[in-house]
Amino acid sequence: MIPERFPVTQRLAEALTRLRPEDLTAVAEDRARIAFLDTIGVTAAGMAEPPVRHLRRVLGCVEAMPQAPRDRALVLGTAAHALDYDDVAFGGHVSAVIVPALLALLPEIPPADAARLPLAYAAGIEAWAETSSREKTLYNAKGGHPTGLLGPIGAAGAASVLLRLDIVATRSALSMAASLGAGLTVNFGTMTKPLHAGRAAEAGVLAALLARNGMTAAPDGIEAPNGFLQVHSPGGTPDLSMPVALEQSLLRLETVSPSIKCFPVCYAAHRAIDAALALHAMPDCDAAEIAAVEITTSPRHSTTLRYRDPQSVAEARFSLEFAVCRALQTGRLGLADLASNALADPELRALMALCTRHLSDEVDPRLDGYAAHDAVRLHMRDGRVLESPHITRPLGHAENPLGQEDLDSKLADCLSQKTGMPTPAACHGMVNALRDDAPAAYKDLSTLAAALW
Amino acid sequence: MIPERFPVTQRLAEALTRLRPEDLTAVAEDRARIAFLDTIGVTAAGMAEPPVRHLRRVLGCVEAMPQAPRDRALVLGTAAHALDYDDVAFGGHVSAVIVPALLALLPEIPPADAARLPLAYAAGIEAWAETSSREKTLYNAKGGHPTGLLGPIGAAGAASVLLRLDIVATRSALSMAASLGAGLTVNFGTMTKPLHAGRAAEAGVLAALLARNGMTAAPDGIEAPNGFLQVHSPGGTPDLSMPVALEQSLLRLETVSPSIKCFPVCYAAHRAIDAALALHAMPDCDAAEIAAVEITTSPRHSTTLRYRDPQSVAEARFSLEFAVCRALQTGRLGLADLASNALADPELRALMALCTRHLSDEVDPRLDGYAAHDAVRLHMRDGRVLESPHITRPLGHAENPLGQEDLDSKLADCLSQKTGMPTPAACHGMVNALRDDAPAAYKDLSTLAAALW
Repeated sequence: MIPERFPVTQRLAEALTRLRPEDLTAVAEDRARIAFLDTIGVTAAGMAEPPVRHLRRVLGCVEAMPQAPRDRALVLGTAAHALDYDDVAFGGHVSAVIVPALLALLPEIPPADAARLPLAYAAGIEAWAETSSREKTLYNAKGGHPTGLLGPIGAAGAASVLLRLDIVATRSALSMAASLGAGLTVNFGTMTKPLHAGRAAEAGVLAALLARNGMTAAPDGIEAPNGFLQVHSPGGTPDLSMPVALEQSLLRLETVSPSIKCFPVCYAAHRAIDAALALHAMPDCDAAEIAAVEITTSPRHSTTLRYRDPQSVAEARFSLEFAVCRALQTGRLGLADLASNALADPELRALMALCTRHLSDEVDPRLDGYAAHDAVRLHMRDGRVLESPHITRPLGHAENPLGQEDLDSKLADCLSQKTGMPTPAACHGMVNALRDDAPAAYKDLSTLAAALW
Repeated sequence: MIPERFPVTQRLAEALTRLRPEDLTAVAEDRARIAFLDTIGVTAAGMAEPPVRHLRRVLGCVEAMPQAPRDRALVLGTAAHALDYDDVAFGGHVSAVIVPALLALLPEIPPADAARLPLAYAAGIEAWAETSSREKTLYNAKGGHPTGLLGPIGAAGAASVLLRLDIVATRSALSMAASLGAGLTVNFGTMTKPLHAGRAAEAGVLAALLARNGMTAAPDGIEAPNGFLQVHSPGGTPDLSMPVALEQSLLRLETVSPSIKCFPVCYAAHRAIDAALALHAMPDCDAAEIAAVEITTSPRHSTTLRYRDPQSVAEARFSLEFAVCRALQTGRLGLADLASNALADPELRALMALCTRHLSDEVDPRLDGYAAHDAVRLHMRDGRVLESPHITRPLGHAENPLGQEDLDSKLADCLSQKTGMPTPAACHGMVNALRDDAPAAYKDLSTLAAALW
């Protein structure tokens, strides 16, 4: 018999503390590896971004890695999300919160425990998803930033497993983290958005370290009538009676992979970019010969991508016209394409002026807010009409995963933004070594984490 | 003409940046002084409490005051709220957030600017009240802790004025702080509750320092459709069209004073304690002769004070029976009365067993959740019935303010909990000197802030 209000916090804590490295299947471990590598890449590339520079000045860690784990988590989490190039799952930017929290805790664990990093990552995903899966409406619908709200719970779950906390401490960490979730969508498009990810990573680290020290929190912070789910629910009817999934099945990372971003712009543009890239790849598609560009997307994504004539890199990240036309023009959309001189290119601007948006009223049956498909149609000066394929899952989406070559190319592009970083191959090596030679991997990973500063 | 959605964040920032020390009237300055002294006292007494000890261990500042302003704000804010002995206004524990934020920033300002401390305090109250006054329903009604939610905005307003931020930076600080508010009532009665005040103080300090450095946030973080007021509103209809009060009138601290707590227990018990103290003061009231105790309070306060037979000091802080009977027994309720040996006194326990609660269905017309009055009736063994007066505003309430002697006695009791603190008279001296000799007061106040560690 399931009680009316399932003791989510307690039973999730019990399930997390029971986890052993051998519970992580090869598939889940591979996904954790990809998330670590991708997040290390976008964090390295994000460290030079303005919100991170401001944070480092205020925290007094411009010169070197800060001593305090929570400072490290705050800066690394903000950097991981600063370019909007980090992965997404369960309604939020999961790895930009969980991976920084774990990297921040490296100096807190014995080297042999580095072998627990992939498991701890999977535990963080589990805690995050266990909470988010109980709410049907997107938190964004009411102005909450899911990454900021759920992130502390995810990071606390991950940190608890990495630090081998017992049941009571894990429960306190989860419940304390439930009290620390924050972030409003009104601050999207400003430097405060990545700060939400940083504060979430930091909150999870702080909650786990405090709980390890004996700090108390309610036993039912997630499911109580005045707990996380009811307080933040935009729909008003969170599922409080569902049992904890991990008690009954494998880790969720076994079945769902975070979607990796191929382009450093808002995820809402990714389908249309894939459509544009498919057109660019056609042998007879010369951008200089285009007379008109028609872009089909959902009303919600059109609203999100609201800058038709972006004046800054921050605005370009949320511009459908910029994203599609740059892809049509160059056949790619990497970090270099977001530089301000790329933005000022008159040929690009001329192409953007030829764009029309079509809002589709057909909806994707499984993705809230998405059109049934996104597409791009080109009218060429010679009268030809070129149609892109219908894109339903952009490359990198969990159901259309990136191949190794594309992952490596993104990682290389990201790592090249920062001096002193290891090569992509070296990064692969240290993440692969986590299972086979944890102490060696720990040493390498610590060096890499230090190089991020 | 007032626009439908008033630009609260922008216009509040403008009004705050226009404030000058001469705008603070003598009445408001006196209230700021009392708040500083009272908060310094409860912070000193709270520094030995468990949540503060855990925090200091985790932050690595057991030995000395931490270097980072945000670490100082986090610890001092948590300490100020750890004993539940700190003042209340506008639905929250205002001074436990604002005063720690300001003390944490002392090393960031030139000594002469210490003269701005009372003004900065009033500005913090103003930013907090400007936001809270737009919501009719208590945030608690939906499980939000007002201190944690509104506190960052109050602390950011105070910090912005202390640091002399310009309009754009003040607006960013307020809007960033709006994105950092957090805290669930489910964690009341645990060590996480005071952490909410600490995180709020810290968030305000961080937001102001980041904004000073150029970090951006939305221009309308408070009033936007996806901003603070709409996202956190328990009632669903916050007032978004009301103009900013400070543009049209004096600082709110001119008309409203925080209510000072006389007893280190939940504020919901304070009326009944006053009733019990009035009985104790009657010449023919001997606690040993009491046969029955009837306590009248509101249903909500009875629920809040839920421990009829408290097993710990934390529970005793939320026990109506403990509070009333200890006051009947000893004629006071100070910090020493919350020690565990006081709690174990068999005579006290016998008296507590004689209590009955009466829930009043008459409501206070101006205080949400309060009964029309609270009262205590004693049945003596010799058949006499002793009735307390009807208490509507406990001593210390803004409408029934404490006299200087009571304020001093609380301050002395609090300061005596920590070695190395100045005398109450010395504390008075340095707060009074803020206007006349700011550099000297700055030096003394910095010494005091250091002594708190």
